Amino acid sequence: MWRWLVLPAGDRIRVGILGITGHTGEELLRWLLRHPRVEVSLVASRGAGQKLSTIYPWSGLDLEVEEIDVGSIRERCDCVFLALPHTVSQQFVPGLVGGPVVIDLSADFRFREAEVYERWYRVRHSCPDLLKKAVYGLPELRREEIKKASLVANPGCYPTAVILGLYPFVKNFSFRSIWVDAKSGTSGAGRKIREELLFVSMANNLYPYKPNTHQHIPEILSQLGIEAENFVFVPHIVGIDRGIVASIYVETDKRLDPEEVKEAYESFYANSPFVVVRQDLPSYLDVRNTNQCHIAIRLLAPRKLLIVSTIDNLVKGASGQAIQNMNLIFGLEEKEGLR
Amino acid sequence: MWRWLVLPAGDRIRVGILGITGHTGEELLRWLLRHPRVEVSLVASRGAGQKLSTIYPWSGLDLEVEEIDVGSIRERCDCVFLALPHTVSQQFVPGLVGGPVVIDLSADFRFREAEVYERWYRVRHSCPDLLKKAVYGLPELRREEIKKASLVANPGCYPTAVILGLYPFVKNFSFRSIWVDAKSGTSGAGRKIREELLFVSMANNLYPYKPNTHQHIPEILSQLGIEAENFVFVPHIVGIDRGIVASIYVETDKRLDPEEVKEAYESFYANSPFVVVRQDLPSYLDVRNTNQCHIAIRLLAPRKLLIVSTIDNLVKGASGQAIQNMNLIFGLEEKEGLR
Amino acid sequence: MWRWLVLPAGDRIRVGILGITGHTGEELLRWLLRHPRVEVSLVASRGAGQKLSTIYPWSGLDLEVEEIDVGSIRERCDCVFLALPHTVSQQFVPGLVGGPVVIDLSADFRFREAEVYERWYRVRHSCPDLLKKAVYGLPELRREEIKKASLVANPGCYPTAVILGLYPFVKNFSFRSIWVDAKSGTSGAGRKIREELLFVSMANNLYPYKPNTHQHIPEILSQLGIEAENFVFVPHIVGIDRGIVASIYVETDKRLDPEEVKEAYESFYANSPFVVVRQDLPSYLDVRNTNQCHIAIRLLAPRKLLIVSTIDNLVKGASGQAIQNMNLIFGLEEKEGLR
Amino acid sequence: MWRWLVLPAGDRIRVGILGITGHTGEELLRWLLRHPRVEVSLVASRGAGQKLSTIYPWSGLDLEVEEIDVGSIRERCDCVFLALPHTVSQQFVPGLVGGPVVIDLSADFRFREAEVYERWYRVRHSCPDLLKKAVYGLPELRREEIKKASLVANPGCYPTAVILGLYPFVKNFSFRSIWVDAKSGTSGAGRKIREELLFVSMANNLYPYKPNTHQHIPEILSQLGIEAENFVFVPHIVGIDRGIVASIYVETDKRLDPEEVKEAYESFYANSPFVVVRQDLPSYLDVRNTNQCHIAIRLLAPRKLLIVSTIDNLVKGASGQAIQNMNLIFGLEEKEGLR
Repeated sequence: MWRWLVLPAGDRIRVGILGITGHTGEELLRWLLRHPRVEVSLVASRGAGQKLSTIYPWSGLDLEVEEIDVGSIRERCDCVFLALPHTVSQQFVPGLVGGPVVIDLSADFRFREAEVYERWYRVRHSCPDLLKKAVYGLPELRREEIKKASLVANPGCYPTAVILGLYPFVKNFSFRSIWVDAKSGTSGAGRKIREELLFVSMANNLYPYKPNTHQHIPEILSQLGIEAENFVFVPHIVGIDRGIVASIYVETDKRLDPEEVKEAYESFYANSPFVVVRQDLPSYLDVRNTNQCHIAIRLLAPRKLLIVSTIDNLVKGASGQAIQNMNLIFGLEEKEGLR
Repeated sequence: MWRWLVLPAGDRIRVGILGITGHTGEELLRWLLRHPRVEVSLVASRGAGQKLSTIYPWSGLDLEVEEIDVGSIRERCDCVFLALPHTVSQQFVPGLVGGPVVIDLSADFRFREAEVYERWYRVRHSCPDLLKKAVYGLPELRREEIKKASLVANPGCYPTAVILGLYPFVKNFSFRSIWVDAKSGTSGAGRKIREELLFVSMANNLYPYKPNTHQHIPEILSQLGIEAENFVFVPHIVGIDRGIVASIYVETDKRLDPEEVKEAYESFYANSPFVVVRQDLPSYLDVRNTNQCHIAIRLLAPRKLLIVSTIDNLVKGASGQAIQNMNLIFGLEEKEGLR
Repeated sequence: MWRWLVLPAGDRIRVGILGITGHTGEELLRWLLRHPRVEVSLVASRGAGQKLSTIYPWSGLDLEVEEIDVGSIRERCDCVFLALPHTVSQQFVPGLVGGPVVIDLSADFRFREAEVYERWYRVRHSCPDLLKKAVYGLPELRREEIKKASLVANPGCYPTAVILGLYPFVKNFSFRSIWVDAKSGTSGAGRKIREELLFVSMANNLYPYKPNTHQHIPEILSQLGIEAENFVFVPHIVGIDRGIVASIYVETDKRLDPEEVKEAYESFYANSPFVVVRQDLPSYLDVRNTNQCHIAIRLLAPRKLLIVSTIDNLVKGASGQAIQNMNLIFGLEEKEGLR
Repeated sequence: MWRWLVLPAGDRIRVGILGITGHTGEELLRWLLRHPRVEVSLVASRGAGQKLSTIYPWSGLDLEVEEIDVGSIRERCDCVFLALPHTVSQQFVPGLVGGPVVIDLSADFRFREAEVYERWYRVRHSCPDLLKKAVYGLPELRREEIKKASLVANPGCYPTAVILGLYPFVKNFSFRSIWVDAKSGTSGAGRKIREELLFVSMANNLYPYKPNTHQHIPEILSQLGIEAENFVFVPHIVGIDRGIVASIYVETDKRLDPEEVKEAYESFYANSPFVVVRQDLPSYLDVRNTNQCHIAIRLLAPRKLLIVSTIDNLVKGASGQAIQNMNLIFGLEEKEGLR
């Protein structure tokens, strides 16, 4: 069943990108064109027809953007990335199952239970039976599962930063309450044509939104295995183009030993090439345009902890992580094409 | 006929703003609320109904945004600002004539000949007979005419910077050719909801557009009284929120005396409180949030001249200049409310 | 002793600005030049000599920047603003006492006890006897005291946002712990010439710093009358030019009634013209270039509260608030010159 | 003498970077770590000692930053990049000659005549005899010379954009005068710790500087083989982090045929993989983070031409071009590691 445990040396993975005109589609293309073991063989988008070099002059590619055609994808791709909006991915995944490896960047397959998805995204799920087949593609937590996956649900940007920042803590220590104050550049919202995403609305601006009601919350809770009642998540938009910094505040009942906490993080991430546990506090620019996640821990008081986790939302928070998942599935080195 | 040569001391001008939800409408409101001789008595916008404090929480005003109603404006306003899109102003101006002073910030009344307007804006003009009634509201060129005007066509942002930068030169010296390279922040485009105006499209970006085809060209040519064949205008958008810097390159047939050129500028602007002729080169930040225009002149070679002219496009390039015009008409000090 | 309970109608306050070349000095100048009841009669800075119009071409003022001379200030100013670094203010305040009203924007006179100042700022205080004379200039908390003050310690930028955001809560409700996640534009750091404040270091960047060790903490604690052990303060720098958004997380032991909380805020700020308690969440752009503070409250869970407080750090967080204090002392309307 | 006409398959070039803490040093590191045929074997900087992972946490490299030691470089490097300030490169190049391939990113070896360098940079040249040995590293003009070079003078950022934009024109057509209006992000100034490069000085700002006196002018003139008297160059700084857009205005005596001009560009760049001659106008974002140069040509009038040329100043304008030169010298594909 696992067709390629290791890709034959010299062979290239034929990849397709669906949703090439969006933000994560573009970022996927940037990285995949540099990937030494990949050949971009198909790019598609609803209502297409243009040359890729017209949409992205830097790509220099004559490839024509196609309509999404499941049959064609099955034939011409070993791996297909779905950089499509929520609910659109669902329409194509059933037809792709059993064909190429599917890496879906939408939220459609991130939950085991359709009911959670339907409650937070307020739409019905059209193929709930496939949810159990999907593996949540956060390699630092599920590396071995991912290697065997044929359908990967690539994590959301906030969940990537928050789960990586909290996982070693919640697995090793008890807590009383967690408050996450997350800050994101505007690209997190994609290329939606809305007044609040105009340059004149965002430049120099800064504000909180969806306090404790953001749709990424159930993803964080279910992956961490924690309860909503002890968890608060407040995202903020800042007037920079990309990047996420999650400042995570934890209150515990017992006194914490900072060395023990640090040790928990270092050992958990010892074999994760993209996570850097730091002594000093990270800046977002430290991870910009990389697939890295930088984490720092500060004990503020005997029972109060600050955890800072920062990623580039378009790379580790989306397209880079999708490629990391592809590398794992095709038996390549995890960092291939992502250095 | 000129109802107020001087506004009675202590009296306030009752002003209306049409198009309050747009960029120049907002900027007008900011300045007018601070103006000691003004009372904002009416704000309107197509499809309104909201409280002003909902749209602009900083305004703290309970005023309700109204539908544009000509009768109501005539009754309740001494002066009305039309911060409306091109072609929309035309619909209301005829009904306002003979009532309050009308200061139109659109392009609809900037040309003497309907034909020029129609060629560059590609629409028909619905009230060409009113064009002769309108005064082009650039106080530094037409102060006395403006004082007597009842309909003012407020200049475009690029024309303000370029005309102020060139006028003393073209009136006093001959030239062979002029090249204008203008740079503008994104607010020049207003709040149009378009992909190219999204934060993710504009942040960190920089590009030329409409080279020698921008609709502001005829306004510049007609006010300067020069011919298109010796004039080039290439605007650029830069990833900052507001501001215009026009770098103007002039080639002459005769050798220029830099002192003579400087003298021409200083004497022309001697009584213009908002124009500063500088020795050093100006930065846009020098004029940000002010109604000023800073100009510097550099002789680059005996027959080659650089003129730099910078304004805040939303203030001197739009709303501030409109208030300057109002001050002149109502006999107030030119700088009143614009310091 | 209180020379001007009410400034005679038509008279202008003769003000001086010490530290005119710094960020808050510049912002003071911008607002004071627009203030209808003020005459800027003296500007000074260590190592001066230039014309004000050279440093700030927009000011158009021929005023010469002078060396700081206490005798001259006493003679020529009714009110003097000290926009000087910490420790420098102390050198001049003793000589000014008994002369003009002194409004100090540094931290030097913000604490009752020299010991707190010395611990957090790591320098000795040279005139601790004057500390009791100084009034902490947060008008919303101490309006009546300020009216009678001759020495005002103008609050820090973070403390202004945080104290205004928390005061009605801590005075009316008990809490278990408070976490403040504050975000600030780079102007908070002033014009220090340091690598980390370069454009290339800050553009697109975002990071936390001084977690629970920032020197503004004691100011917040002492004004709120709360204990350090229940309070966490983590500031962040974001790549925008100015502005502060404080996201304040409160955990209580008892269930909160959101209506009661809201009522506490609305009644407390009923007579404070610059504080707006909002239903919707504020954005920093709502207060940019204003002296306002916008506050919103959200109950996230029965015992968990989010309070958002935003100000322009250079206006309500520094220079605007200083002018608000001047207005109160000189018997002017609180909003005079700050609209 | 040319040790490697072709690098043995599988072998890696051992490279050194001098000046690793600067802006171009950092950018070199980013690209070289991704280059499949390179091993970064030495990084150096005056006054060093730190781990690379401390300075650049994203690098994940334990490499220690060393003092610059010529003997050590000769031993451990096949190719060394000098990302050093002007005048500093000169001190090390003589000692490196005959050892590794030297690619110097400073201006020290860009001129044939020491006299030109000395006039524009106002310092003496300490090894003028080496100037003739150096090849000006603009591959699109001197590909074959570069392949045989052992000392490359990597072009300046403005010259790269301007020369690529003008070369096919000046070689094929006569002109009367050329005006270059160039716009650059702030990283062009490097990491100099100066007030005018602070975030608060640059954010939202835009201004011209050094009109017709910039030190990059002689480089442009000598490579194009044109005279100063017909050429004007006015650079501008814009408040974005990186990027150059050169808008080039050409006046001719004869009428131009746009097809002929276009044909001249297309044929000249037919074999240059990084230059894209476009029909539509390019935006800087089209080339951001790439080694590409996008060029567009517009005939504005029968004798007036606009040429737009845009690059990423840190990539094609510095570090990327240096790697392109290395690829040529070592017989690699020109795009290796630069896709």
